Amino acid sequence: MRTIEQKGEYSYVFSRYEEPIERVEPGEEVVLQTEDALCGLLRNENDDLEDVEKKRGGPNPQTGPLYIEGAKAGDTLKVHIIDIEPARDWAVSCINKFFGGLTPNKSTRMVNVSLHEKIYIYRFDNEGMLRHDDFLRFPWKPFMGTIATAPGREAVSTMTPFENGGNMDCPDVKPGNIVYLPVSVDGAYFFTGDVHANQGEGELCGTALEISARVKLKFEILKGRQITWPRIESPDEYMVVGSARPMEDAARIAYAELIEWMVEFGWDRLDAYQALTQAGKLYCANMVDTNYSMVAKISKTLAERRKL
Amino acid sequence: MRTIEQKGEYSYVFSRYEEPIERVEPGEEVVLQTEDALCGLLRNENDDLEDVEKKRGGPNPQTGPLYIEGAKAGDTLKVHIIDIEPARDWAVSCINKFFGGLTPNKSTRMVNVSLHEKIYIYRFDNEGMLRHDDFLRFPWKPFMGTIATAPGREAVSTMTPFENGGNMDCPDVKPGNIVYLPVSVDGAYFFTGDVHANQGEGELCGTALEISARVKLKFEILKGRQITWPRIESPDEYMVVGSARPMEDAARIAYAELIEWMVEFGWDRLDAYQALTQAGKLYCANMVDTNYSMVAKISKTLAERRKL
Amino acid sequence: MRTIEQKGEYSYVFSRYEEPIERVEPGEEVVLQTEDALCGLLRNENDDLEDVEKKRGGPNPQTGPLYIEGAKAGDTLKVHIIDIEPARDWAVSCINKFFGGLTPNKSTRMVNVSLHEKIYIYRFDNEGMLRHDDFLRFPWKPFMGTIATAPGREAVSTMTPFENGGNMDCPDVKPGNIVYLPVSVDGAYFFTGDVHANQGEGELCGTALEISARVKLKFEILKGRQITWPRIESPDEYMVVGSARPMEDAARIAYAELIEWMVEFGWDRLDAYQALTQAGKLYCANMVDTNYSMVAKISKTLAERRKL
Amino acid sequence: MRTIEQKGEYSYVFSRYEEPIERVEPGEEVVLQTEDALCGLLRNENDDLEDVEKKRGGPNPQTGPLYIEGAKAGDTLKVHIIDIEPARDWAVSCINKFFGGLTPNKSTRMVNVSLHEKIYIYRFDNEGMLRHDDFLRFPWKPFMGTIATAPGREAVSTMTPFENGGNMDCPDVKPGNIVYLPVSVDGAYFFTGDVHANQGEGELCGTALEISARVKLKFEILKGRQITWPRIESPDEYMVVGSARPMEDAARIAYAELIEWMVEFGWDRLDAYQALTQAGKLYCANMVDTNYSMVAKISKTLAERRKL
Repeated sequence: MRTIEQKGEYSYVFSRYEEPIERVEPGEEVVLQTEDALCGLLRNENDDLEDVEKKRGGPNPQTGPLYIEGAKAGDTLKVHIIDIEPARDWAVSCINKFFGGLTPNKSTRMVNVSLHEKIYIYRFDNEGMLRHDDFLRFPWKPFMGTIATAPGREAVSTMTPFENGGNMDCPDVKPGNIVYLPVSVDGAYFFTGDVHANQGEGELCGTALEISARVKLKFEILKGRQITWPRIESPDEYMVVGSARPMEDAARIAYAELIEWMVEFGWDRLDAYQALTQAGKLYCANMVDTNYSMVAKISKTLAERRKL
Repeated sequence: MRTIEQKGEYSYVFSRYEEPIERVEPGEEVVLQTEDALCGLLRNENDDLEDVEKKRGGPNPQTGPLYIEGAKAGDTLKVHIIDIEPARDWAVSCINKFFGGLTPNKSTRMVNVSLHEKIYIYRFDNEGMLRHDDFLRFPWKPFMGTIATAPGREAVSTMTPFENGGNMDCPDVKPGNIVYLPVSVDGAYFFTGDVHANQGEGELCGTALEISARVKLKFEILKGRQITWPRIESPDEYMVVGSARPMEDAARIAYAELIEWMVEFGWDRLDAYQALTQAGKLYCANMVDTNYSMVAKISKTLAERRKL
Repeated sequence: MRTIEQKGEYSYVFSRYEEPIERVEPGEEVVLQTEDALCGLLRNENDDLEDVEKKRGGPNPQTGPLYIEGAKAGDTLKVHIIDIEPARDWAVSCINKFFGGLTPNKSTRMVNVSLHEKIYIYRFDNEGMLRHDDFLRFPWKPFMGTIATAPGREAVSTMTPFENGGNMDCPDVKPGNIVYLPVSVDGAYFFTGDVHANQGEGELCGTALEISARVKLKFEILKGRQITWPRIESPDEYMVVGSARPMEDAARIAYAELIEWMVEFGWDRLDAYQALTQAGKLYCANMVDTNYSMVAKISKTLAERRKL
Repeated sequence: MRTIEQKGEYSYVFSRYEEPIERVEPGEEVVLQTEDALCGLLRNENDDLEDVEKKRGGPNPQTGPLYIEGAKAGDTLKVHIIDIEPARDWAVSCINKFFGGLTPNKSTRMVNVSLHEKIYIYRFDNEGMLRHDDFLRFPWKPFMGTIATAPGREAVSTMTPFENGGNMDCPDVKPGNIVYLPVSVDGAYFFTGDVHANQGEGELCGTALEISARVKLKFEILKGRQITWPRIESPDEYMVVGSARPMEDAARIAYAELIEWMVEFGWDRLDAYQALTQAGKLYCANMVDTNYSMVAKISKTLAERRKL
């Protein structure tokens, strides 16, 4: 199986203007080596978070773009997430001065004194848990914080979740699930990175259990099938991730697009609206990034009643 | 066991200015009879939703207030939800013209043409499911959409979720769980109603499976213990419900108050912030009411590590 | 001319449940004596802001309610603001710990360190300016921060701007202008207070130049004329104040209601939408209160073209 | 004087990845020829708005990028707007199906029926007014809806207002005023376009009086002076434009950055916060674009007291 590592600098934008690092055929299983969100620069509790901006292109270095053979603008890219393995024996989180869900930040500006930074190093213990101390100890439940195709004309910061995926920080982008992404440029220009060893819903302080990893993926192309926001399929559920601000707009997108998906199954639009009212799920993936991400879900059993 | 029915008109405000309908002792189990959110006026698909405003005080008629003996402003009211039984064999939902998560409404004004109203009547079928047709069919998973104590000086519409509870439309206000509410006036002035036979997260179209019901409750008073937002305890989790607009403010309240709860357990504030980042849950209870409600959760196992 | 002072405690809610302090006939000019927003408790730079909650009912004590003879629910109250005179020779502002546009607060919660409070005392200098020092010195441009009728069933905190007016902190509620308010209960139950000697748009830190004052008003009743949000008429402009969160919802309300006003003049709805696109004004009255207030304006010249 | 026209396709992104169309020296006065926001495709009331997406790169074609000689990343670009002349005798506006402040749109999704499109053609009448009919008639008050430098790594849609300017739709970007923009790439990569013959605050329906024009500009470079958001200087006022969602975040940015500007003048940060509370202005430039834009202002007289 081919292992793909970034050649040269990692990418800090989801962009057609970056040079593809590899070409991948649909159906081929590949392993992507990813760097952690902090560029591997935070290794102990006295390291300086500002180095991420000073020495690198910022947080969220991406592996990619991969050129997916045969993908054309207007298609949909189907990404099977087969496996995620840690590439080292520790993860890192940190409280940030000007980033986080309960911290003044670049968008929600305050005149208040900032927090002190605090770095948390977690190591795998002998039960396979990531352990900082007796209280801060969490299981290995990995997923990719970022996954995207390149947008049409724009080049989007790898801090941003958007129509083509990006920094959604959605725990359902995990092994066993399938992610569907719009293809906006020929070759799709696929990026991923920012693996989290675990993360709660919302990614409250802004930094999950950040780790470098090996991500095993397989791609398919749905020819001529156009979607407008990322979709996820788990063994039991269909989901859409909406990303916007304020958070209610992210929620509206997620549910409105899930209605569209149900309409594709044969549902009447208002009946789908009614069904999601009674049986939809809606959780927050991130409340910290440049857009907030909300995930709307419906069970396959219910959605597929219309197919029967 | 005492069954309490509303005497005279139902209440359409959470308010100290309403006359208590009964006095209840802590520890006594009581059954409250509740009317459905639409005042029982929608009984078939041709009924007129506007009657709810015209003939009654609006949606969400409340049973209450109950005067809880011994409760003083500054205490906390602990409400054990023991059971909910349907008071009839059908439930009702509807698509509203100017209310709902994907509909222009009184707050999010548009110049667009409104939706047509559509009423959905659901009946219990012989498997105990609420059935509109082969596609719209949902299990009985009841909870109280509204639960509140009276605020200090204000009288708050029963459409509104707020610091003392109210119209949170939170599916975790269900049998087997405990709800903690601030006491702002002597006697607590407890209200409940708006039982939902089932509801998805967000209550997308604005109307769940509305039903009249019998709610079995027991009250306790935590003397001199002050909380500022509603808390919920399930067998496995601690939760806080934050209600505000925009939705991110509801999320901030929910997590900030959950941090405060963890601090009460002995956590350092920043470590609690860190722990919730990795292991918190955050879902949307409603995205349709005058405030949005977000529910933040942590497992008891994790929260109680500090007690050990 | 009758001068009306509050008898007993000031009111801290806009509410039908308060006892009217006086009955006023339409057409009568009356002078209302108002207390400052901080209950007159901040008199020098070492006073304690927390006294406002501890010793009084909170900020924004109101003079009222006035029972306006002949006003019935469903009418509109037309309030002529004739004059505002200072009732003392100084005003006060302050930086608050947990209140303000650039400060974490009860809605926008943060884990950050709070600001220190800072009290600013301003005195009229011999040029009639309110002077704290050479740099902080502002002209006398008084208006009423709060003006309201009682809502139908609710009792609303005097910190809140809403459909019936309230704490809009709108600098156009000033002498020479007319304010139109919905009447929701018989007698209207009129309240005012929170006079500002001056204030910028947004009331950024949350506290303007707070002063006690004498407000000269005259009331008229527009029988059977129903409005849903406060309207203001200056010699040159028509305005609507929308109050909501997030701020875009306040803006949507303000413009949507201004369209309705133009429709009353004879405009086609979409043409009014078009006209406001090219010639409307939209400023922020407050970005600090429990709802934000936005003011949409159109020149009378333009609005009245349809009457010609 | 040099007149610069777009060579080849207009630009639909603010981006370093576009090829500079000309190089301009600081101090040189140049005239830029701009196309209207709808790519010149809407010429009568039956034209099809969808052509803008189908036949061109979307709305807001930009003239640029100009390479400004000597500008380095970290400098500030000072843009003197000297004059704007119409390049034709008519302007166009339209009501859009899925765009506008009171219309469901790509961010604020609804299930409602969309509006019909309606195109308004305005022609200069013999008093120099732009006239659609007797009621819709507005004076010539031109400004540039878009003005930007390229961001560092991103390529940003010309529909978006952001840190480096962009689609702010701010009526103060007008002749006689100076706009300051951050320089993020060497050469600055300056873009402008989207001239509006006039526009109200908020650009309510999403489309102002769109016109092609000739814009006369002069550039200066402030070496080593770094700003983070666009600033504007009029003869009487200093302003900052903040762009974000929700609208309160745009307001927070605008005022927080205006405080920073005042700190540069010598103000204490909290005193600047206080001064803006009493004397700042805050209006909405747009409530329709991918970010909302708010403009905070202070009079030069007040801001410069600290220099005295």
